[in-house]
Amino acid sequence: MKVVTFGEIMLRLSTPGFSRFMQADRFDVHYGGGEANVAVSLANFGLQSAFVTRLPENELGQAAVNMLRGHGVDTSHILRGGERIGIYFLETGASQRPSKVIYDRAHSAVSAIDGREVDWDALFRDAGWFHWTGITPALGEPCRQALEMACAAARRAGVTISCDLNYRKKLWSPREAQQVMQPLMSYVDVCIANEEDAQKSLGLTISAGDVHKGQLNMEAYAETARTLKKRYGFKTVAITLRESRSASENGWSALLLDN
Amino acid sequence: MKVVTFGEIMLRLSTPGFSRFMQADRFDVHYGGGEANVAVSLANFGLQSAFVTRLPENELGQAAVNMLRGHGVDTSHILRGGERIGIYFLETGASQRPSKVIYDRAHSAVSAIDGREVDWDALFRDAGWFHWTGITPALGEPCRQALEMACAAARRAGVTISCDLNYRKKLWSPREAQQVMQPLMSYVDVCIANEEDAQKSLGLTISAGDVHKGQLNMEAYAETARTLKKRYGFKTVAITLRESRSASENGWSALLLDN
Amino acid sequence: MKVVTFGEIMLRLSTPGFSRFMQADRFDVHYGGGEANVAVSLANFGLQSAFVTRLPENELGQAAVNMLRGHGVDTSHILRGGERIGIYFLETGASQRPSKVIYDRAHSAVSAIDGREVDWDALFRDAGWFHWTGITPALGEPCRQALEMACAAARRAGVTISCDLNYRKKLWSPREAQQVMQPLMSYVDVCIANEEDAQKSLGLTISAGDVHKGQLNMEAYAETARTLKKRYGFKTVAITLRESRSASENGWSALLLDN
Amino acid sequence: MKVVTFGEIMLRLSTPGFSRFMQADRFDVHYGGGEANVAVSLANFGLQSAFVTRLPENELGQAAVNMLRGHGVDTSHILRGGERIGIYFLETGASQRPSKVIYDRAHSAVSAIDGREVDWDALFRDAGWFHWTGITPALGEPCRQALEMACAAARRAGVTISCDLNYRKKLWSPREAQQVMQPLMSYVDVCIANEEDAQKSLGLTISAGDVHKGQLNMEAYAETARTLKKRYGFKTVAITLRESRSASENGWSALLLDN
Amino acid sequence: MKVVTFGEIMLRLSTPGFSRFMQADRFDVHYGGGEANVAVSLANFGLQSAFVTRLPENELGQAAVNMLRGHGVDTSHILRGGERIGIYFLETGASQRPSKVIYDRAHSAVSAIDGREVDWDALFRDAGWFHWTGITPALGEPCRQALEMACAAARRAGVTISCDLNYRKKLWSPREAQQVMQPLMSYVDVCIANEEDAQKSLGLTISAGDVHKGQLNMEAYAETARTLKKRYGFKTVAITLRESRSASENGWSALLLDN
Amino acid sequence: MKVVTFGEIMLRLSTPGFSRFMQADRFDVHYGGGEANVAVSLANFGLQSAFVTRLPENELGQAAVNMLRGHGVDTSHILRGGERIGIYFLETGASQRPSKVIYDRAHSAVSAIDGREVDWDALFRDAGWFHWTGITPALGEPCRQALEMACAAARRAGVTISCDLNYRKKLWSPREAQQVMQPLMSYVDVCIANEEDAQKSLGLTISAGDVHKGQLNMEAYAETARTLKKRYGFKTVAITLRESRSASENGWSALLLDN
Repeated sequence: MKVVTFGEIMLRLSTPGFSRFMQADRFDVHYGGGEANVAVSLANFGLQSAFVTRLPENELGQAAVNMLRGHGVDTSHILRGGERIGIYFLETGASQRPSKVIYDRAHSAVSAIDGREVDWDALFRDAGWFHWTGITPALGEPCRQALEMACAAARRAGVTISCDLNYRKKLWSPREAQQVMQPLMSYVDVCIANEEDAQKSLGLTISAGDVHKGQLNMEAYAETARTLKKRYGFKTVAITLRESRSASENGWSALLLDN
Repeated sequence: MKVVTFGEIMLRLSTPGFSRFMQADRFDVHYGGGEANVAVSLANFGLQSAFVTRLPENELGQAAVNMLRGHGVDTSHILRGGERIGIYFLETGASQRPSKVIYDRAHSAVSAIDGREVDWDALFRDAGWFHWTGITPALGEPCRQALEMACAAARRAGVTISCDLNYRKKLWSPREAQQVMQPLMSYVDVCIANEEDAQKSLGLTISAGDVHKGQLNMEAYAETARTLKKRYGFKTVAITLRESRSASENGWSALLLDN
Repeated sequence: MKVVTFGEIMLRLSTPGFSRFMQADRFDVHYGGGEANVAVSLANFGLQSAFVTRLPENELGQAAVNMLRGHGVDTSHILRGGERIGIYFLETGASQRPSKVIYDRAHSAVSAIDGREVDWDALFRDAGWFHWTGITPALGEPCRQALEMACAAARRAGVTISCDLNYRKKLWSPREAQQVMQPLMSYVDVCIANEEDAQKSLGLTISAGDVHKGQLNMEAYAETARTLKKRYGFKTVAITLRESRSASENGWSALLLDN
Repeated sequence: MKVVTFGEIMLRLSTPGFSRFMQADRFDVHYGGGEANVAVSLANFGLQSAFVTRLPENELGQAAVNMLRGHGVDTSHILRGGERIGIYFLETGASQRPSKVIYDRAHSAVSAIDGREVDWDALFRDAGWFHWTGITPALGEPCRQALEMACAAARRAGVTISCDLNYRKKLWSPREAQQVMQPLMSYVDVCIANEEDAQKSLGLTISAGDVHKGQLNMEAYAETARTLKKRYGFKTVAITLRESRSASENGWSALLLDN
Repeated sequence: MKVVTFGEIMLRLSTPGFSRFMQADRFDVHYGGGEANVAVSLANFGLQSAFVTRLPENELGQAAVNMLRGHGVDTSHILRGGERIGIYFLETGASQRPSKVIYDRAHSAVSAIDGREVDWDALFRDAGWFHWTGITPALGEPCRQALEMACAAARRAGVTISCDLNYRKKLWSPREAQQVMQPLMSYVDVCIANEEDAQKSLGLTISAGDVHKGQLNMEAYAETARTLKKRYGFKTVAITLRESRSASENGWSALLLDN
Repeated sequence: MKVVTFGEIMLRLSTPGFSRFMQADRFDVHYGGGEANVAVSLANFGLQSAFVTRLPENELGQAAVNMLRGHGVDTSHILRGGERIGIYFLETGASQRPSKVIYDRAHSAVSAIDGREVDWDALFRDAGWFHWTGITPALGEPCRQALEMACAAARRAGVTISCDLNYRKKLWSPREAQQVMQPLMSYVDVCIANEEDAQKSLGLTISAGDVHKGQLNMEAYAETARTLKKRYGFKTVAITLRESRSASENGWSALLLDN
């Protein structure tokens, strides 16, 4: 099955080891993003995958394309043009010092994408699944419009649509998010969320323990899933749970509400 | 003597050794710029120097400040604020392959500087020299205005003003450059130029051999210097000459027209 | 136009900088080979290219595939199987010390290729050019047989065939080379050679100055080209000339005898 | 508030990762020391700070100065001269293998400091706090004398004086330490100590559990603080407690006995 | 006391940090092997040690020799010749991803050793201990024969012989292992084993809990030791126990059954 | 033939690439010295060699020993003890910027060597050659005395003695050098020198062109050699000539006066 994802791929510049921004005399270079990483992982696991975005026509845009196709991702629908590739700088935390991220993603090529330049129908012709996250429509109106075209085309082609709500407070407010995300839910078959996402992106409020204290209220999560399913008619709801035991240790679990 | 310089300091991200953008898995990190480098060099040689710019309030802006004051440059007049630090990416050439630069400097903090926020009179009170280059006013109207305030304050304080014309075709056209640069020449005591700068930034045309072929017509250069001095009333004109012998070998010479 | 190349791609492990094998505590990793490099370069220049080889089913084989498709080379006809990827170790020379290469390529996956497992006809259906070098048949009888199948299929498909004679004394003697290479010349349209290749691989002897002394006898080279063209009916002969000025400096020139 | 610290800043050469001295082909370079690190941290937190020491007139001394002023520390009172910068070599432990330190600090510039060359009164004029540790007087008689001049000047200027006892067995015996440290306590307002420091540097003995076993006897610590406060008239006593859970994990806590 | 060990020393190429084979652009270089590591460790602890193997006459073979003698191991009995040094590639695991090893050791120099070329009697003349592991005879008949010569010579010289059974499923089946290992036990004084080794290499079966679950049945281990001692007449049996708590944390314990 | 050399081996810490002391965040680590390098090179060329020095009992001393014996040098006569290993820091020059060296070799272990602790007679029993340089006696009286013991023992054993005068102005004045070196010449069979060495170390003055300008007066060199041979009765005199063409390019030649 071919899986299509759509979003931003950014240049990540991270300080080596635990060194700080102000000490670093080199940055490690990676290209990635939520939706691009899904495409790469699925290709590594042996599935066919395609990634759609817009990248500048310079060597940094090409480097992102090369990374993707090196992993076997179909990059033939990526648009080229625009001003720059989005960048974020990462400093890994240590003991009490938390990790820091500096975003420098404004004016990126994908934020000015014209969705009409992508041949969505051709893209979904042999696809079985379309995956996107809440980051994509948060990048601005051009991305939101392109995403809606993608969803409509995916529905026409009968492919399953999954969405990871993935609320990002640096990109928009809960109010802005809900205005954009709620209408888009009508396209979604599989919804991936956690409690905060459901609250900020869709306005759902259910008390579910204190996540920061690592205490998970399973019943509240199940109730969140049931409510989401009922309100938006999702076929499947997946809730991922991360316990923060310490800066370098997390517990992972997940809850799947299927038909 | 304290020397003041004003301009943009950028984050330079360069591929290690001769590796290409598309191969690099890390970038070497430096902070620099024409005017900042002059301030650092003079401090290394034992003079007092101060650098004026505007940098974002994040750690990358702070890293640039720390680099400067580490070398002993006075950074107390640097403004903090704005969106981002300008970036450029550098890939060093090898044999027939030329070096490549990708600029990502639009929307930088300094490009939106408000010159009224700098206390120019305090800055020049104990200064003997003010140095700027043609890059600074090419960064846009806010920079041009700030530069004019700086020149006016420097003149009021009686400090010598030097300008390296430094024409950059990626930033403006000759026509735009001349409209901005010609009026600013009235402030300049010492003008640093090469033939191309004089032509593109000030509209001066004197034939001086084929620089690309490494052939230098000394008399034509001397004539350029005399014409510049006469037309703009400079006290001193310095012309720097670089012969391109090969990708990794250059010949350097210079001509000084004083008095 | 799509260009197909066929040969071995090896893991190159080189000491960093000018360090010696006995000092190195790390090796730089690259994947390459004469024919693979041509496919990568053509893809970088914007042509379509495909590379055929056999690689083991482990991660090192996959890394070679990923590098190729990252550059846009079609790897869909690469066979997977066999014992190991060929390796060579490289130590770069400095001043009087020459570079050293340790080959560890015996028993490589491609050396046991079964040419019948490649669908040559499908491969050449939309191709315009097939390129190989004298290294491929020197890897042993299975490679020679596969190469002959490739040449026959290319001819059936009407694609141009080019061969870089590329004599390698570590792989075979001149006598062995000539027995294999001479019959294969009947498939070749474009022959790339230098004086030594023509002599060792095809038995041609024409005096052409002392290459080691950097003195090039142009007329002798032209005579070599004319003789090759006449004897084997090549459409085109290209002779590449490298002058060894010093360990780190070479002069490059070339001679093309076209129709 | 400006904080002044006085002590030795050393060149730290550490093996990368967990590699051992005998394997390392490079050392990571840092400049630091107990008192210098306090000055740097306070500057990072936004306070004004100044550091006093003596460094050789070579580039290694200058590199230490540049590091300090890069972080915003006032280095204008640092003396230059003497033979060498103190060095220590560090190999980080792993699993059962403990970390190792090789000190090479004898004959360092600061160990021959002439305290009369520092203008202590000017230094403390606008300062609010003076911090030193038990390492400084342990570096020999010149350092002890300079420290006493510093304490006297600080008292004259009415600045608060804090001392971290910081007993170092590689530098002196408990008996030597007590002869030097006890008289200096008359200058101290704020004393920072742990049980071992109080015992070795000041001769105080109070049983407080087995620190190596990570068992902390809170009452004994409180008694230590009360006894120190009473005996030396400190305004404040701070006791820092480190539990050694394993080679890479520690528990930190602290106890403050204030007025 | 001089300790002699005999086996294969390989070139280990490992990806830096936690990077994967497909991402690595360099490999860290080490030379090691079970028996070589014992010789190096004993030399580090101050004993005399000698290592016997066969290495190719190239620089990689020499680098292995240099590493050994750098640590003080006697390498004067190492044979030189053969095709290649055995290689293995290592990728260190992280969280759920396990470590991966790719062996490329076929056709190594030592696998074709002729035991008659080693002067075993001279080697053991001043030795007190001979140590080998089950890896050595698993490398093929030439190694098995050389090992038997070594054991016979060691016995003639009256030196203690220890064997770490060390069953490796990538090298042979339990059946092949038992046919070779059982007869060799007659030479062994000190046997080092774990439960799996005893079962696979010698055919011993005693239930001893589920090692993978980290549960150790001490009594079953003691019984294994007693049975081994009785069946083969060992003077001493050592059983090493490793509990796998997680990918990066192990518990180590051991059991010694001595006279 | 076994060659013995005696001198200091130092820890060299060099900045990577062309980076400056003040920029370097790591130093490359090497162990070497004039006499140690001769021993290593001869061992690499297949001769037997032994090196005598004194090194501290810490891991840095051991690392130097390991490096030497890794290359096959006999280190069994090296004394262990003393305060520290001598260090020098190296910054490689680039274009107009010259290389810089910071010596930190005072108080090194070898500078306090007691020559009576070396069993010189045993050392020279099977040796054919003893080599030393003018650096060794310049390290102070203990080294001078040890060197004289070495020369006397070498003469008793009938081994050839060579000396590279190697005048170092950072270690002593010409006057000091001549007082020490002239008497030692009575032991020397083979003298290696250049014009400056002969002048500074032995007081010989013969005009021989301007070496800095790269102009070599061959006849003056020959005269230097003849004079040295006559005055001190050397069997052989070797003069090495280095022309400084530029910072990174030198011309090498040599003159041998034998018999």
